[in-house]
Amino acid sequence: MATATFQHPVMTDKAAILAVAERIRQAHHDKDAEAIVAEHALDAQIFSLAPPLMHRPDVEETQKWLNTWRGPVEFSYHHLQIKVSGNLAVASGYVRLAGRKIGAAQPVDFWFRGTLTLERRHGDWQIVHEHHSVPFYMDGTLRPAFDLQPKA
Amino acid sequence: MATATFQHPVMTDKAAILAVAERIRQAHHDKDAEAIVAEHALDAQIFSLAPPLMHRPDVEETQKWLNTWRGPVEFSYHHLQIKVSGNLAVASGYVRLAGRKIGAAQPVDFWFRGTLTLERRHGDWQIVHEHHSVPFYMDGTLRPAFDLQPKA
Repeated sequence: MATATFQHPVMTDKAAILAVAERIRQAHHDKDAEAIVAEHALDAQIFSLAPPLMHRPDVEETQKWLNTWRGPVEFSYHHLQIKVSGNLAVASGYVRLAGRKIGAAQPVDFWFRGTLTLERRHGDWQIVHEHHSVPFYMDGTLRPAFDLQPKA
Repeated sequence: MATATFQHPVMTDKAAILAVAERIRQAHHDKDAEAIVAEHALDAQIFSLAPPLMHRPDVEETQKWLNTWRGPVEFSYHHLQIKVSGNLAVASGYVRLAGRKIGAAQPVDFWFRGTLTLERRHGDWQIVHEHHSVPFYMDGTLRPAFDLQPKA
């Protein structure tokens, strides 16, 4: 066709992956487990902050966890380093989790590490592997290290 | 040339990446920090079991940790799922860490999660990002979960 037609701007792969991270942040803010799970492949392997060693995407489990918070949950990716090759991508960086748990006197606010592996399936980038973690002190106390911050 | 020349068998990418994991296992057994660090790119981003949030490959730091063990250290990857696209690969699975720490009454023996991102640089697969972690119990105790095992 010779007529000028509106074109959606082509999003680069890195921008598309940052958009996945942004939708996950928004979904936590909105406490919308379905929107979080929708960014994952059905068979995604999830290494979460909490046991067991491996989870699968689960709307009910995710919603139950979101409902342990009072008000919105801040869950935001920062300093993501993104590598893309063909239909495979890896994004790694830091996550800030903050909010108020129901029944807790103190607010929660800590940083942890996040690694996302994504595959482009049917044109969309989906999370196929997720690894979120807090290191632990090996000083004899074996406490999870909730007091760390990413360095610039 | 028409003469038949000896060809090294071409290793598939997955086999080459499993060989990286095997050399890391052997290097822990031998307490050889240089051999561990040699599998990493100089600028690799390492999310380790211990703080801080991010480490860089460091022979001295790694050797110091290896020297806190009495005898060999078992550090073995299991059930690795490997994805390869071009010069980018991700391997994720479980790690068993076992041995005896100097001065400790009880042996160490636990499973954790491992994610390795590798890039093929100058023909060799090198680790450019590593994420090792133990989840923690969110049952109010906030203990690292050293009692977990991978499911078959």
